[in-house]
Parts: sequence; structure tokens; C-alpha cells
Amino acid sequence: MSRSYLDWNATAPLRPEARAAMLKAMDLVGNPSSVHAEGRAAKALVERARAQVARALGAEGADVVFTSGATEAAALALAGRGLVGAAIEHDAVASWIDTSLPVSAGGLVTVSEPGRSTLQLANSETGILQTLPEGLAVSDMTQAFGKVPLAFNWSGCDMALVSAHKLGGPKGVGALVLKRGLDVEARIRGGGQEMGRRSGTENLIGIAGFGAAAEAAQRDLEAGCWERVEKLRSILEKALESSAKDIIFVGKSSRRLPNTSCIVVPGWRGETQVMQMDLAGFAISAGSACSSGKVKVSRVLQSMGLGDGASCAIRVSIGPETTEEEVLRFAEAWAAAHGRMMARSGQGS
Amino acid sequence: MSRSYLDWNATAPLRPEARAAMLKAMDLVGNPSSVHAEGRAAKALVERARAQVARALGAEGADVVFTSGATEAAALALAGRGLVGAAIEHDAVASWIDTSLPVSAGGLVTVSEPGRSTLQLANSETGILQTLPEGLAVSDMTQAFGKVPLAFNWSGCDMALVSAHKLGGPKGVGALVLKRGLDVEARIRGGGQEMGRRSGTENLIGIAGFGAAAEAAQRDLEAGCWERVEKLRSILEKALESSAKDIIFVGKSSRRLPNTSCIVVPGWRGETQVMQMDLAGFAISAGSACSSGKVKVSRVLQSMGLGDGASCAIRVSIGPETTEEEVLRFAEAWAAAHGRMMARSGQGS
Repeated sequence: MSRSYLDWNATAPLRPEARAAMLKAMDLVGNPSSVHAEGRAAKALVERARAQVARALGAEGADVVFTSGATEAAALALAGRGLVGAAIEHDAVASWIDTSLPVSAGGLVTVSEPGRSTLQLANSETGILQTLPEGLAVSDMTQAFGKVPLAFNWSGCDMALVSAHKLGGPKGVGALVLKRGLDVEARIRGGGQEMGRRSGTENLIGIAGFGAAAEAAQRDLEAGCWERVEKLRSILEKALESSAKDIIFVGKSSRRLPNTSCIVVPGWRGETQVMQMDLAGFAISAGSACSSGKVKVSRVLQSMGLGDGASCAIRVSIGPETTEEEVLRFAEAWAAAHGRMMARSGQGS
Repeated sequence: MSRSYLDWNATAPLRPEARAAMLKAMDLVGNPSSVHAEGRAAKALVERARAQVARALGAEGADVVFTSGATEAAALALAGRGLVGAAIEHDAVASWIDTSLPVSAGGLVTVSEPGRSTLQLANSETGILQTLPEGLAVSDMTQAFGKVPLAFNWSGCDMALVSAHKLGGPKGVGALVLKRGLDVEARIRGGGQEMGRRSGTENLIGIAGFGAAAEAAQRDLEAGCWERVEKLRSILEKALESSAKDIIFVGKSSRRLPNTSCIVVPGWRGETQVMQMDLAGFAISAGSACSSGKVKVSRVLQSMGLGDGASCAIRVSIGPETTEEEVLRFAEAWAAAHGRMMARSGQGS
């Protein structure tokens, strides 16, 4: 059975440009810290990727510190700083902060002290976009990077977290981006790589893939690729709406990522929907992908005041490779499952 | 000009088995934390690699926690624990410990309280092997893994650090291995991956490469591949010795890794030798590869009492792909450079 992958916010397929760059990097034997020719060639590859990521992120002149992902970048930026944020932040951020900032029903966060706060640019579950206040200490730009126009240098943030695999790079690579002149205390120490901010032999193959993916993502974004994705999402949401009167699209009245649809049907558990759709050949999710396969009730949706609805949400997140045919097939399969659920619960018409 | 890579302890070439496994992993789109079929397939790949690493390391039944490398594994095992060790430990370990344990002139460390101590199995610069005391808290097995027979379960250690790229896997992947029942405090928090010990989306492609490389390394080791390497090292050392009366092979009277030769010529700076050999087409190193291309005076050799000799050392580290012809060509080029140095310094015969 052919399957449709509609879970791009969990992780995106590897871009051909990333694959090609990774294959080339596999042929370089050197350690980027070695002084001989092989080492210098490896170092040059890391620096090329750093420039590619900086350019794609509008962060020329800022420091890009490669990490093993946005989760490590979050620890590097946040641990021990006592920053505040909202409960809609990703677990990787929420683990280090006081999550007391208020969240509106539309998913928007009010920041009172930007210099002491962290705020995501886009939410992974709902796609809702925040307006970042000038002087913000840290922003998690993981889900936004590659999907919406974005320039770190114009964001007014001191630091940003990004990840490769959300934009078609490999999993296990990310970066902390810092305004020039700022610093962080290294949490992984030793050889002094990454200007002493993050020791350990560089993930050469992964970093090469990140650089190439970031460059390709930026090119696609400028070419309007995500406008087509947004149209597909509209087609999807209209089709779903027409088959289920009780459907709620979370954050639909807010500015959202172009590819994300967070769907609640009160009384129909998200977990159940994910399993039914999986059997029907569609990969979607309930909440974020995390915690070793366990589906928790969404803290994001709870803090938006959804109450019991928070356990009845699914996320459909599509990408540039998604076709209209896939979206319509999904809507059809979902509508059929929804009809069966309504019939079972005696709510059917 | 054809080049010879004689710096396997800095990083080893990627094994074909690792490359093949990584290519296959590139085709898997899922996030290992997702519950759908694509996520489960990715998760299965991670678990397969975990079993491969455990088997190769003789650590069946122990917990293998994948990290971004041995440096991160060191931070996870050591930070905040106040362990003691010797100054010959790698920077990634030395950064977290009290380096007061005594080192003999032969490079051997005396451990008085194993439960409060860390001790490397093999030194990266000299190749000298330690005998690990029963009940040791942590051992850095990075350089030994894949080069000498080794079983974590029989080592008497509570925890071990290993890295993929030293045995032909990709750079940027490693593991912390723990006896079942022990735990560590997570330093990278969020999604709860790796049983909560190390959050962050798994480096799927890198982990697949690590598993395949570990399995291949174990197979080669059992097939006696490193006995041939040891013979090549003898050929190398005999050839060098015959051309330089003032040469010292550090640790030659101790048990060493089969592939490592640490060579001191008093008065001839290691850094200079590395650059001359690089120009002649040979990649070797002075000290460990670290600190962004800077060559520091070797703390390892200083703590073995080599004094000024510590800045006059090079490391030649070979591997299964190294040929006798390469080793002899290196010895010839080195002898020529040594002769020129002697002539310049007026010591020539």
C-alpha cells in the first residue's frame, strides 16, 4: 500500500541537496581539528556549511554554533538562566524555564520583559506564529526556519535555536545562533571546538547536510514553494470541514505556518485518530513527536484553554512534496473514520 | 600527489558498511518518536544499531545511550561528580575531573579509589593501555574500542564512553554505556528520548552508521586485522630507528594499541614535523586533534615526565587500510627531514 507522509513538522524528508552534500562529506577523511591537508579540508566544509546556514537564516555576521540539534541548543541557551516563557514552548525549551507567561485563546503569548524571556516563532503543534518583541533573549525558530521568511538579524533576538531535520537536513544537527559579542557557558567541554562553546569532533557529514538543506530551503521559500503548500492546506481544511460539523481548526484565526493544521473533534481522541489513519496509510501525529512514542495530552492546547479538547487533537503537517491527491485521499479516509466514530457514539445523523 | 593518511587516532576513514547503512537510513523519513509506521521503522533502526554497538562492545544487557560523541558522553558521565583521574586523560574527560592521580614514566596510572575515579583504556597520543581496576566509576574506551579485544561487561567499570568515528563510523555520534540499574542526570532535556537520559531527535543516519561500523570493526578485530597493523608498526619503528639515533618511542615498553607510534626527537618540534610531513604528503599529528587546529604542548607527555620532549612529539597512527609501502615511504620522507634538521642544527654527522 502506498503511504502518505503528512507529518512534516515531526521531521521532513531528506532533501536531495542534503543527501548529495553528505555523500561528498563521506569521502573526506580528516578531523576538522587536524592541521594537515585532510583536516583543513574537513574544516573548510564545516565553515562552508556555517555560512550557508547563516545566509539562509539572515544571520550573516552572527555566530552560528553547531550542536546535535535544537534540543541541545536550547540547553546551551537556557540552562541556569532562569528565563520565563509560555507553556506552549517545546519540551526542550520548557524544561529550562518558568512557564508562567500568559497565552491567549488564539495561542498568542504576552511577553512583559523581553530580555528575560524566551518565545518560539512558530508552534510545532498548531503552527501559530508569534510576533517577537524587540530585545527577546531567546527564540526557538526551529519550526519556522525554512517555512516562512525570516531574518535573525532583523528579529531583535539575542539568540535563536534551529534544527536541520525540520527543513530537509539530517536529524541530529542543529545550531545556536548568537548576536556577535554574546556568549554562553559551554556544557560539553573538551577539545574547544566551535570557539570553545561546544566541544567534540564535529558531525561533519550531518553539518554538510544541514548547510545544503538550509540553502535549498531558502531557495524554495523565495521561489514561493510554501504558497502552494498553503493552498493545499486550504483544500484540506475545506474538505474536512465539509464532512464534520463538529471540527475545530486550532489557531485558524491567527497567523500560522503555511503547512500546519491542528484539528480537534471533541470526544474523539487524537491517539485513536492517529492509529486509524496510520492503518489507512497516512502518517500524522497527535501533539509533538517526543517521549519515545508516548502520546501525552497536549500542554500547548491545554494552555490555550482547550480543556478536554486537548486530548482530541491531531496535527496534519504537509510539505512541498505533498500532492493535492494525497490531501484529498486523506480527507476522504478521515471523513470515513469520523463517520464510523459518530455512528458508534450514537451521534451519527 | 597521492597522500597517505596516517592519523587514524584523530579520525578513521568511513567504513563501507557504515556508508551503506547511512544511505539506507537516508530513505527513512520517520522521526523515531512518532507512533506511525514511518516512526516505528526509524525507531527500529535506532534499536538495531544499539544492539550492534552493545554486541561489539561486549555490553549486552547494559544500557547504551546514544550521544553526539564521546565528548558529550564524558559530560554526561562526569559533570558534577567530582571524580579523580590522571592528567593523561583526554580534554573531554579532564575538563570535569581532579587530575591528581599519579602517572608513571611508562604512562601507567595508579588508581587508589576506583569508585571515585575515571581511567582511559587507551591513550590517544601514545596508545598506552591501562589495566582497569575492578569497580572503576568511568572509563574512556574511545581509542580502544575496535582496536583491541574488549568487553564492557567484563571490564568491572560502571560506565564507559565510546565514539563512532574512531572505528570507522561517522563523526558526531557516540555513546555512554552504563551497567543496568545505574543512572545519570540528563544534561540535554526535552522530549525524553534515550530513556530520558538524553533528549533530542536521534541522529538516525549517524546512529545507523555507528551500528554498522561497530559490527564491522568487531568482525575485523576477530579476524586478526590489527595483528597485521601491529606488524606494520614494527616495520615503521625499525625503519625510523635505523635513521635517527636520537629517536624515542614513547611507551614502547608498555602495552600499547597496535596502531600507534608516539615519536620524540629532542629539539625537533612536533608542530614543525607535522607541517613538513604534510607537505611531503603524509597526514600525521602532534598531540590530539583538538582546539581548532592549534597544537598545544602535550599534557599527556608532560605528565609522563618528558619535559621539553613533550613539544617534540609526533603521533603516527595507522589502520587496516595502511600499506607497507606507505609506511616505508613515510619513514623515508621523515628520515630525510630529520637529516635536514640535523644538518641545520649542526648535529649532523
